[in-house]
Amino acid sequence: MSEALAQERQAVTEIDTPVPVIDLDIVERNLVRMQGYADRHGLALRPHIKTHKLPRLALRQVELGAVGITCQKLGEAEVMADAGLDDILISYPLIGREKARRLAALARRITMRAAIDNPLALETVALAGREAGRPIGVLVEFDSGMHRTGVTSVEAALALIAQVKAADGLGFDGLMTYPSSAATTDFVRAVRDAGIDLPIVSGGGTPGAAHAHEIAGVTEMRVGTYIYNDRTLVEVGAATLDDCALHVHATVVSRPTEDRAILDCGSKTLSSDLIPRGVSAGYGLLLDYPDALIDRLSEEHGMVDLSRSAKKPALGERLRVLPNHVCVVTNLHDEVVASRGGMVEGIWPVVARGLTR
Amino acid sequence: MSEALAQERQAVTEIDTPVPVIDLDIVERNLVRMQGYADRHGLALRPHIKTHKLPRLALRQVELGAVGITCQKLGEAEVMADAGLDDILISYPLIGREKARRLAALARRITMRAAIDNPLALETVALAGREAGRPIGVLVEFDSGMHRTGVTSVEAALALIAQVKAADGLGFDGLMTYPSSAATTDFVRAVRDAGIDLPIVSGGGTPGAAHAHEIAGVTEMRVGTYIYNDRTLVEVGAATLDDCALHVHATVVSRPTEDRAILDCGSKTLSSDLIPRGVSAGYGLLLDYPDALIDRLSEEHGMVDLSRSAKKPALGERLRVLPNHVCVVTNLHDEVVASRGGMVEGIWPVVARGLTR
Repeated sequence: MSEALAQERQAVTEIDTPVPVIDLDIVERNLVRMQGYADRHGLALRPHIKTHKLPRLALRQVELGAVGITCQKLGEAEVMADAGLDDILISYPLIGREKARRLAALARRITMRAAIDNPLALETVALAGREAGRPIGVLVEFDSGMHRTGVTSVEAALALIAQVKAADGLGFDGLMTYPSSAATTDFVRAVRDAGIDLPIVSGGGTPGAAHAHEIAGVTEMRVGTYIYNDRTLVEVGAATLDDCALHVHATVVSRPTEDRAILDCGSKTLSSDLIPRGVSAGYGLLLDYPDALIDRLSEEHGMVDLSRSAKKPALGERLRVLPNHVCVVTNLHDEVVASRGGMVEGIWPVVARGLTR
Repeated sequence: MSEALAQERQAVTEIDTPVPVIDLDIVERNLVRMQGYADRHGLALRPHIKTHKLPRLALRQVELGAVGITCQKLGEAEVMADAGLDDILISYPLIGREKARRLAALARRITMRAAIDNPLALETVALAGREAGRPIGVLVEFDSGMHRTGVTSVEAALALIAQVKAADGLGFDGLMTYPSSAATTDFVRAVRDAGIDLPIVSGGGTPGAAHAHEIAGVTEMRVGTYIYNDRTLVEVGAATLDDCALHVHATVVSRPTEDRAILDCGSKTLSSDLIPRGVSAGYGLLLDYPDALIDRLSEEHGMVDLSRSAKKPALGERLRVLPNHVCVVTNLHDEVVASRGGMVEGIWPVVARGLTR
């Protein structure tokens, strides 16, 4: 496949399966809506690029008003900086000399920020700031209920903030958490009450994005999935099926029994992610057969239980699957088909996929 | 990273994390052992390349005595043919003109075979055989208990075999199933009793590989995971920890509480695969902390519960993780570090990763 194909205005359905397809009209509507929300509520928007991993969509996000972008890994930031993005937050603790070297190289070119929750990450970012010859802005990450990274007490946050302020090579920019919650407000207030000025308080999460303005203290939204949405967001009520911009097109490659169909999309295409604590079972939603259940995956096989589906797909039929978790689907594919009105606009390399370092 | 680094005999531990590392001594031992087993029992070995996705290891498998290789997708076969591999079985139903075109292009260069379980796949392979100007060998797939692809009755197999024999562009090579089981023997006997000559009966699966010679009727082993092995195979007793050749090296990037560590390997690095029907919980085994539990993954975070681990890893410590399912880990990474005795032999591009078509 190549960009040349797009010139011929090929129908999406002519592209062989399995293949992820995005609808650019839905993408644009999702981007405009979220930026409008942020603007209305005086919140800065710093989209997380993990969902699309495409420089051109990151550039569009900034064009619409985003203050910068969020990456989790330096490799993603390097790709985005190469494409002209500026003001990149690494929302992940960086540790070690090699990461300091790469962060310094980025900080010489563009504005870099980094979140930290521990002294080794602080040392790494400070080393990078000194090597770059300009301080790197730091957000101290705190835990507001995810039980992942982030300091777990106000005292620990204050201690780390003091170390940031004392360190050569760092600037103190504020706080970061994921996701935003009621606990966020309490934590931020306690830090402010201790006399700390917080230019940025960065919160996150598409599931709760529509209520971000109700979380007092938060100044910035880090959201990623809103650009495409997925079955998980539909299940929690944060998106409708019409807001979902990415579908995997698949083919029924076998119909061994009346009640079983095999799709050519397995865990290499859809990932093994289920809906966390979800009501909806299975590995994705078959848009045209909502009562069919993708109940098992091998790497290349999607096993579909049709026993509760009155309508049953035929051998060779092409189907659209709404993934449970779209970010991990993006990461699995080297290319995504960009479409509008069912026609191919381009075959885009997913430039920032697979960058785990 | 580049091949040049290997010249300096760099220690594996100098490569930044997260990173998959294979031990070439263990790989070689696993390859020699399986080929020896197949030879002792007069079974043909046709390794599945999905586990390593590396042409150079496929070439080594053939050098040791494999009759050819198995791929699930045409993209994998194209990569392998480009590297000089011959006699490739596509163990997956191919459907559609585009796949026929690609299969024909391969069949003009090398010996190609394909498994089918339905009339559309038959048509696709026959079209390819006619386009290539030489018949393509077909295995009829039957279901021996996996409930995935494969015809589910002897009658259906006989009907499909008759269609294969009648079709222009095809040769009938025999039967295929996954995995080999007691049902396999019954099915094969029934087809033979119907007067069908079966030059090849291809069975599969590393978990049961040591008993492949007990499954009467099977002539060929399709096994993949044995080259690296993984935590699932250790759990089912098909491998020991010493037989496991691939580990993910990761770093403790956060220690938010006494009983929680965060690793820089999440689902983008380890996949979300749990052990199917497994006793062992979690997303991988921490070799040096076997009582620690990787109980949750985000895309870049591995959350480790240390509450049952007397010994606890320190912030910044480098750890080795044995993945639950090594094939999907291979698929996630653009490169794998090839090592011997803890020293880097090369950084190998995983050439056949991500090829879902």
